[in-house]
Amino acid sequence: MVIPSLIQHKRDGGALRAEDWTRLVAEYTAGRVPDYQMSALLMAVLFRGMTTEELAALTDAMLDSGDRLRFDGYPVPRVDKHSTGGVGDKVSLLLAPMVACCGVAVPMMSGRGLGHTGGTLDKLEAIPGFRTGLSLREARTQVERIGCAMLGQTPEIAPADRRLYALRDVTATVESIPLIAASIMSKKLAEGLNGLVLDVKTGSGAFLPEPERALELARTMIALGEARGCPTVALLTAMDRPLGRACGHTLEVEEAIEGLSGRGPADLMEVTYALGAEMLVLVGVHPDQRQARQALETAVADGRALEKFARIIEAQGGNPAVVDDPSVLAQAGAVEVFRAPRGGVVAAVEPRRLGQAILELGGGRRTMEDAVDHSVGFVITAKPGDQVREGEPVASIFARDAEGIAVGQAALREAIRIAETGSLTPLITHRVTSRGVERLGGAS
Amino acid sequence: MVIPSLIQHKRDGGALRAEDWTRLVAEYTAGRVPDYQMSALLMAVLFRGMTTEELAALTDAMLDSGDRLRFDGYPVPRVDKHSTGGVGDKVSLLLAPMVACCGVAVPMMSGRGLGHTGGTLDKLEAIPGFRTGLSLREARTQVERIGCAMLGQTPEIAPADRRLYALRDVTATVESIPLIAASIMSKKLAEGLNGLVLDVKTGSGAFLPEPERALELARTMIALGEARGCPTVALLTAMDRPLGRACGHTLEVEEAIEGLSGRGPADLMEVTYALGAEMLVLVGVHPDQRQARQALETAVADGRALEKFARIIEAQGGNPAVVDDPSVLAQAGAVEVFRAPRGGVVAAVEPRRLGQAILELGGGRRTMEDAVDHSVGFVITAKPGDQVREGEPVASIFARDAEGIAVGQAALREAIRIAETGSLTPLITHRVTSRGVERLGGAS
Repeated sequence: MVIPSLIQHKRDGGALRAEDWTRLVAEYTAGRVPDYQMSALLMAVLFRGMTTEELAALTDAMLDSGDRLRFDGYPVPRVDKHSTGGVGDKVSLLLAPMVACCGVAVPMMSGRGLGHTGGTLDKLEAIPGFRTGLSLREARTQVERIGCAMLGQTPEIAPADRRLYALRDVTATVESIPLIAASIMSKKLAEGLNGLVLDVKTGSGAFLPEPERALELARTMIALGEARGCPTVALLTAMDRPLGRACGHTLEVEEAIEGLSGRGPADLMEVTYALGAEMLVLVGVHPDQRQARQALETAVADGRALEKFARIIEAQGGNPAVVDDPSVLAQAGAVEVFRAPRGGVVAAVEPRRLGQAILELGGGRRTMEDAVDHSVGFVITAKPGDQVREGEPVASIFARDAEGIAVGQAALREAIRIAETGSLTPLITHRVTSRGVERLGGAS
Repeated sequence: MVIPSLIQHKRDGGALRAEDWTRLVAEYTAGRVPDYQMSALLMAVLFRGMTTEELAALTDAMLDSGDRLRFDGYPVPRVDKHSTGGVGDKVSLLLAPMVACCGVAVPMMSGRGLGHTGGTLDKLEAIPGFRTGLSLREARTQVERIGCAMLGQTPEIAPADRRLYALRDVTATVESIPLIAASIMSKKLAEGLNGLVLDVKTGSGAFLPEPERALELARTMIALGEARGCPTVALLTAMDRPLGRACGHTLEVEEAIEGLSGRGPADLMEVTYALGAEMLVLVGVHPDQRQARQALETAVADGRALEKFARIIEAQGGNPAVVDDPSVLAQAGAVEVFRAPRGGVVAAVEPRRLGQAILELGGGRRTMEDAVDHSVGFVITAKPGDQVREGEPVASIFARDAEGIAVGQAALREAIRIAETGSLTPLITHRVTSRGVERLGGAS
């Protein structure tokens, strides 16, 4: 296999054969194709795209590079949700236990935060003792026992994707729709699912801010899922402001517990219920979204959802008392209110700036090896469109010390923009299925 | 310096700062920027191009990564020629000694063949004993003594270019005009020249077949040279058929000796004299090309040019008897005539196919480590536009054995196309200077 010729063919706008992708991924994973050739090819893919056949071959090759979760003989349908990531997106923490109360199982494999976005694994690890590094065997046993496991990508799952992702991250080849789709789907398809719901973020804080690109990503992933026997649906949701109020690991776990107790912020609950209803309908345990949503609301109202979260935490070595007493979480050394520097209307609450600030406060990672301070972050009560008076508290800063508070104040002055006018964009704008795109909630 | 951000900036169409290129090249050469990041950046450059400022910074950084030939106190003007490469292009072998007879010095640094094109160093090494690996000190001493040295890129010259070129070669990032220009000029500018003439090939056998791209490359290199105090001129010459008749190392040395003896093929002599005249006028030893050409023709006619070649060979350890008795060169084990398979007009003599065949015969290299069989190749007497009768000899094949002859026959059947009509395109089509482009010889 002559790698430079393959790179050149892709570079010049051609399509590689399926067997070329299969071999390329196998040889790369075996260490027989050097990183410098793969990164040049990835950059060419970023410029030229991939055909449906190429993408299918790449996804299958990454999927087949590792093992899968197998649920032979286990009769309960499995369903998962994947989010393309954002700031304040703690939906997985609520959704997994809620949905697992409603007759389906959730083998949820999540990622870590990198850059300005947070990761579900880091949030879970804010809970003392919580162990996300389950083996596939442990995950399967736990799913069969309590209906849910929340774990990281194990070394057995799509090792080719892990190597490729690490390479893409340091070679500016992340923002390619086919490469993103192949990376996500090769992992999700390894979960042994009967259905998958995608939360594709749009807006300034999203990975792909433009709705057109988000739609293209959604369509690409749906086609990959459906062609591999995994019914897939996507919602496009707003990430031009944080979801909910809490941004930061401890703070988001607290807000998730609030949500599971029926006291969560409206936008967070809306997105969670919408995604959860899609999950339940997708695998056929409820005939329509109204009934599915009712089932989810009941699971919250009667305390089963919170109880399920406690059981998941306990099963994975965490302290389940956290659901009644969030003070067992690591607490910030310094807390201070942030007040509106002027009166007016909130024009923007910039998720990227907030994510960046959490990094600066020690709550994120610049490299995969960085340790994370779970206690730091923000609780932001103001949303775009809100009227505020000068001096009115609009956020709280959680930091290690006074120095961190100053960093947080500076960040919020940039992130929260107050002007003469401002408005809240719709929360859930599109529903995408294999049959087409539905516009929702006043999307343009 | 955050490399992924630089790659991303270039990928998205931005220009890097001059100091970024300077540092990037320095860090890469020092082994502190990994190949996989550099290859992704090079691929982004291939798609996005470089600004004049970026290109200048890259060229200077590569030039400054190593040493230069220094001619302090040596009063003779130095001039060199560079060809972008082709099949049958033995011009350097004639030009260096001819020009060195006319009051200028030629410190000529050449390359090896790779892919379908031949390299001057490999041709010189067909001469028994010829040593191309001169040090800078040896080269300078020889130039001052006999007016010419013909050497390879020494380890001291532009080491950054050597590393980058090797990387580009295996990552399909060769065909970028700014990268080609920077690579060529960083080496040529290290020769301590007062003038440089470029032979930029066009047509199917050229590195950049399209005349527009060849012109762009010529303009780019001229701008780089002129801005660094090295007057630079380019001729665009045809490489849609081999130059001269001989293709292959021994055969080309023989043809060069024929040419230096006044018996070379017309097209080879035309290109050689045109380039030589440009060289002499460029550094001011003759007022116009007519007089310069006369000086060159006289040097050939009175035997000084051939004698100079013998002195160069002798000075570099080769057997100077070769100029009188080419049979001291390694000879092919088997020789056979190739006859026109049908009557008609020669429509094409495809240089790429011929170059490929020489590779197949063992006369080229697929990797820089390959050993080269100097004896193999072709002598092709037919040119596009020639009338031929069926069975008429149009070429000779030089191979190791009968198997090689069969390979050669098959290659010539593909390379030499005979049809109803055909014509020879103009040999020298454009003259490019810093003042503009002149169309010559019926170029469209």
